[in-house]
Amino acid sequence: MLLRHVHLGGPVSRTTLAERMGLNRSTILALTADLAAAGLVTEELPGQTGKAGRPSLVVRPESDRVYVIALDVGADRLAAARVGLGGQILDRAETARPIGTFDPADVLSVLSAMARDMIGTAEKSAVCVGVGVAFCGMVREHDGVVRYGPNIGWVDVPFGELLTGQLDLGLRVAVGNNANLGALAERERGVGAGLENLIYLHGDVGIGGGIIMGGRLLGGEGGYAGEVGHMVVNPDGRSCGCGSRGCLEAEAGELALIAAAGRSELAGRDAVEAIIDAAARGDAAARDALHQVGIWLGHGVANLVNIFNPSMVVFGGVLREIYLASAAQVRSKLAVHGLLAVRESVKLRTSALAGDATLVGAAELAFAEVLTDPLQTLARIGGS
Amino acid sequence: MLLRHVHLGGPVSRTTLAERMGLNRSTILALTADLAAAGLVTEELPGQTGKAGRPSLVVRPESDRVYVIALDVGADRLAAARVGLGGQILDRAETARPIGTFDPADVLSVLSAMARDMIGTAEKSAVCVGVGVAFCGMVREHDGVVRYGPNIGWVDVPFGELLTGQLDLGLRVAVGNNANLGALAERERGVGAGLENLIYLHGDVGIGGGIIMGGRLLGGEGGYAGEVGHMVVNPDGRSCGCGSRGCLEAEAGELALIAAAGRSELAGRDAVEAIIDAAARGDAAARDALHQVGIWLGHGVANLVNIFNPSMVVFGGVLREIYLASAAQVRSKLAVHGLLAVRESVKLRTSALAGDATLVGAAELAFAEVLTDPLQTLARIGGS
Repeated sequence: MLLRHVHLGGPVSRTTLAERMGLNRSTILALTADLAAAGLVTEELPGQTGKAGRPSLVVRPESDRVYVIALDVGADRLAAARVGLGGQILDRAETARPIGTFDPADVLSVLSAMARDMIGTAEKSAVCVGVGVAFCGMVREHDGVVRYGPNIGWVDVPFGELLTGQLDLGLRVAVGNNANLGALAERERGVGAGLENLIYLHGDVGIGGGIIMGGRLLGGEGGYAGEVGHMVVNPDGRSCGCGSRGCLEAEAGELALIAAAGRSELAGRDAVEAIIDAAARGDAAARDALHQVGIWLGHGVANLVNIFNPSMVVFGGVLREIYLASAAQVRSKLAVHGLLAVRESVKLRTSALAGDATLVGAAELAFAEVLTDPLQTLARIGGS
Repeated sequence: MLLRHVHLGGPVSRTTLAERMGLNRSTILALTADLAAAGLVTEELPGQTGKAGRPSLVVRPESDRVYVIALDVGADRLAAARVGLGGQILDRAETARPIGTFDPADVLSVLSAMARDMIGTAEKSAVCVGVGVAFCGMVREHDGVVRYGPNIGWVDVPFGELLTGQLDLGLRVAVGNNANLGALAERERGVGAGLENLIYLHGDVGIGGGIIMGGRLLGGEGGYAGEVGHMVVNPDGRSCGCGSRGCLEAEAGELALIAAAGRSELAGRDAVEAIIDAAARGDAAARDALHQVGIWLGHGVANLVNIFNPSMVVFGGVLREIYLASAAQVRSKLAVHGLLAVRESVKLRTSALAGDATLVGAAELAFAEVLTDPLQTLARIGGS
């Protein structure tokens, strides 16, 4: 618990920790001594406080010494980061990929190489305490099997197990749905801090949803809840990678925007940026394309607001830029289709973590074990 | 807790209660003695058990002596029931209403008259311990204000307070959304017994959703979550009572079926039954109408299954009959638009409580106080 406070809240005085956790100072002293001995935190004198008396020591997470590897498998890119205890991104790499089927073996070798590079550049004394992956599809969390990744052509790939073997770090790789992890990241460290009812929409080729209700991530029966990208918004619409037609992601994702703008020579995030730039410069086709995509995005948002009564909808991934460029359409559709009592209490916001929400979420997944049981986890990793 | 076991589980031996609650027999003895003295339960010898030894007394809820009044405000009917402790429906009345705006004063006087009649026919020694109302719209539960009832033309009506005053029983009338209460009723006493992830869809003129995820009813920020009837399934569709167009309830509710069958001389549940009968006798217009409504219902169900990954979707109210008559269309749409991993684990079922799900839910709402604090609640009511 103490480590979690320091990890999520940043450096903090012993006195403040004692207040927040409702423990006395001698207990805090004993707990921090254990964590400091294990190399998880340091204690240091604070800067000038302006208060008289002996200052309370500040407990600081050992971000350089204790870290995780966070990986992100998007339909159009692979990304990796080394993230220190406390949530600092220490190193970051990204590689764009052509859209279409990814061979799992290729993905594994690219991700492994990225992870190894990052581990290699860390200080020799530093310890990697976990590996977490955000994946753009349906994931069975307990064993990391990808049940379905429509935009990269995967069905029932034992991805967590394969990556655990390939990395061979003595650490079990944890895999989660990218939008779910983005939702948690925005709630822990982003624009949704502390909210109880929050929807995070993550866009690339697909659109995924991470839904937090009553403070808990919505899992459903198998952990697959939140596939809002496959809500049909336009029954006569564009065909979707899932085999259906008119899904939200087929009407408001990257590919829809590129097609509507007639810019099929472009792909991925660069395409979205180019179209938004063109619209800003007055290009009519680009403006119309953003307008149209905004209308379908607004339909989807209005449906979700009626269904969930959230206090915030957060747009992440490429939906961040798409929303900013089509907010008028999204808001006007919400005004028409959203019921007053739910519409009046919802805020539409862009991701504070921007392109990193899913990576930050993957890092939190990777930190879960050490935060739950710090001393035993470190002892096990150190000894293996 | 003990009273809740007896209320939900029915008559049960002291021995079984001790096992289920993890308490010893002397504690059970003391608890049942208190409840029996207050007139909430009786204890009696069981029938022939076939076991040797002294039989364990059976604890039985005092259904005749302790009851609640449950009321249901649908867009096309008003219903009332007297429900005994243990959930037995002791008395029931219903009156159809023409569709359109209801004057709140009329609704209050009809409901009050129904409630008074039922209280009047109860035994003199019986005690009414609560009044609960299921309402077909958005309700602010803590004070019973109807925020929005699109199909009966209400906005911000302080319904709970008005009915409390009109009934003048010394009991605060509790008001809840009808679909939410139907969902709880199906989970406590119906087809969804014990399920953690369940969607209940209630149809009359409107379609409401009660969504239970992880064992908890989804409330959202203001308690208005579950307005699935205003999910737009057909952007070019029929206009809806909410001012929008193509909402699920505009495409798959009572009025859509009546219009599609060209039977506008009919109204309400009778109309639905007449159309289903006609289809069964081979009437092509009626069959086509059910087919069309089934397709839109299937669209809505597929969206909800993708979004929530529930283990069951339950059709209640008139949707029970509509689903039974159009199950092929609903299932075929689910097969096309539902993702495999969520589609394979969902069951589609009709309400086990049939027309009474929302009333049974309203009764549970009315019992909430006496179940939480039986002795104090009875003392307060008896003394007032």
